[in-house]
Amino acid sequence: MHILIIGAAGMVGRKLTQALLATGTLNDSPITTLTLADVVTPETPDAPGIAIDARAVDISRAEVAEDLAALRPDVIFHLAAIVSGEAEQDFEKGYAINLDGTRFLFEAIRAQSDRERYCPRVVFTSSIAVFGAPFPNRIGDEFFLTPRTSYGTQKAIGELLLADYSRRGILDGVGIRLPTICIRPGKPNKAASGFFSSILREPLVGLPAVLPVEDSVRHWHASPRAAVGFLLHAARIDTAALGHRRSLNMPGLSATVAEQIEALRRAAGDKAVALIRREPDPMVAEMVDGWARDFDTSRAVSLGFEAERSFAEIIAIHIEDELGGQLPG
Amino acid sequence: MHILIIGAAGMVGRKLTQALLATGTLNDSPITTLTLADVVTPETPDAPGIAIDARAVDISRAEVAEDLAALRPDVIFHLAAIVSGEAEQDFEKGYAINLDGTRFLFEAIRAQSDRERYCPRVVFTSSIAVFGAPFPNRIGDEFFLTPRTSYGTQKAIGELLLADYSRRGILDGVGIRLPTICIRPGKPNKAASGFFSSILREPLVGLPAVLPVEDSVRHWHASPRAAVGFLLHAARIDTAALGHRRSLNMPGLSATVAEQIEALRRAAGDKAVALIRREPDPMVAEMVDGWARDFDTSRAVSLGFEAERSFAEIIAIHIEDELGGQLPG
Repeated sequence: MHILIIGAAGMVGRKLTQALLATGTLNDSPITTLTLADVVTPETPDAPGIAIDARAVDISRAEVAEDLAALRPDVIFHLAAIVSGEAEQDFEKGYAINLDGTRFLFEAIRAQSDRERYCPRVVFTSSIAVFGAPFPNRIGDEFFLTPRTSYGTQKAIGELLLADYSRRGILDGVGIRLPTICIRPGKPNKAASGFFSSILREPLVGLPAVLPVEDSVRHWHASPRAAVGFLLHAARIDTAALGHRRSLNMPGLSATVAEQIEALRRAAGDKAVALIRREPDPMVAEMVDGWARDFDTSRAVSLGFEAERSFAEIIAIHIEDELGGQLPG
Repeated sequence: MHILIIGAAGMVGRKLTQALLATGTLNDSPITTLTLADVVTPETPDAPGIAIDARAVDISRAEVAEDLAALRPDVIFHLAAIVSGEAEQDFEKGYAINLDGTRFLFEAIRAQSDRERYCPRVVFTSSIAVFGAPFPNRIGDEFFLTPRTSYGTQKAIGELLLADYSRRGILDGVGIRLPTICIRPGKPNKAASGFFSSILREPLVGLPAVLPVEDSVRHWHASPRAAVGFLLHAARIDTAALGHRRSLNMPGLSATVAEQIEALRRAAGDKAVALIRREPDPMVAEMVDGWARDFDTSRAVSLGFEAERSFAEIIAIHIEDELGGQLPG
């Protein structure tokens, strides 16, 4: 089995690569080739028996997608994206990567399937940013898509294309709307949602963090480990159960900033909580205000997708996966 | 005021042109220039005092949109589209005109607005094809968009782009989802929905017509005159009332074929009704079965959009607008 990951150098892409190599199989088939593509060359992990092809590519160029699709991978994970904050600031870049990049990929698959029978499973990472206020407290899978960011617009368009190309039998798509990934390891990125992670990640290791919104802000979270689980599961499920509605709200945890902070206090004490500096940012607050807070994920759950149920669990996963199992002395 | 109509040579485009020239104003401003664009050169009506610029253009080429936006029209009616049947048969042409054509237009407007303050009203004709079964009996404005045709997908993407470019202040968009236009003037065509018009249009002038579905079939209609009214009203409304949800189900009439036939009987007698030959076509019946039948249009109605309330009215409009005010002897 040949697997392609587009966006393999990103945090989720790297963890997905590790997970695939850890078992060496997907859907009980041995992985023979793993193609890793990103804007920077993804790291090439050591993997006996698996051919790894790591490439630095610009997916906003049509010929890049053509080259990748010509490899005729069996499963394609399309994770590459310009994140919300950057797509909002750089209109052209966001549309070039998030819309054109996705469409070029689907078109390159179409060209391959025109040439010779080919219909790869495509797992497309969408986002809860496809939904925009006003919305109900719990948003169902089939709530109207009214994104209030260019990023959300681009993801919603990706979902529509995924459904149309799937309906046409060009590809076999599953769109997964990821919760905000928390706790995102590493340095802060340009996502406006970054603080949801940094208010835990930094204080857990004794560093300060900035909170730009009110404690009462409610948001929707899942761990990196859960995100990798969603991707692997999306590559496995029987898509007949999806019908024409190919995109799913992934399960997650609805929690307030106050609840996050309380979980931090239990894990690392008052001195960790004291490292959070409140610095209200009206631009971030306004963006966050337009985001959904809670979801009805019964469709995904019935299909076997799973996530965490508490912030204690999310913090424990972070300590286990990123901090070697314990907080620094 | 400068008005641009893209898709001006089509049935609705021609009637919109006539309506604009009949008053010579839009929103109480005198029309000084009317640019008419279509894939074939639109007819140039006689219009003293109004400069008319009729062009044959291919909107799937970016430079065409750039030329049109460089004229900096105050109001743009974007009606041009590859219709559903053709977009389903010709994948590339549908995406080129319906998606790329729309995006090139919005991008060209963006380039103009970057150069010098510019934010035209853009009236975008969407379609009830953005909705796909399964759906409720009455579909609200904010029902989930799950098109089941490439045409519907392209229109749904157009709606998303319209909303994002509007949110960014690049243009001031209103998307209108038109009902099936009935009674469509002209010759019978091969569109699956064509019979809804032909079972009235032909018998009204003593010609036979074929009915391929059961009398109990329910569908969603508005007259050509109502469609022109929607377009003009969409150019007038205060878009502040739309918020971020820029596309609206237009009002219409939900009626069964039996109700259509009864209205024909009242207008033209039993001998007109006798000209309808029942010739069940399972393929047409199956397609029609997947179409929406009724809509909740309270949002559009509260904004002042209006349509007919009976088939008697729709038939009277056809007689007035297409048959010189009376049925042939």
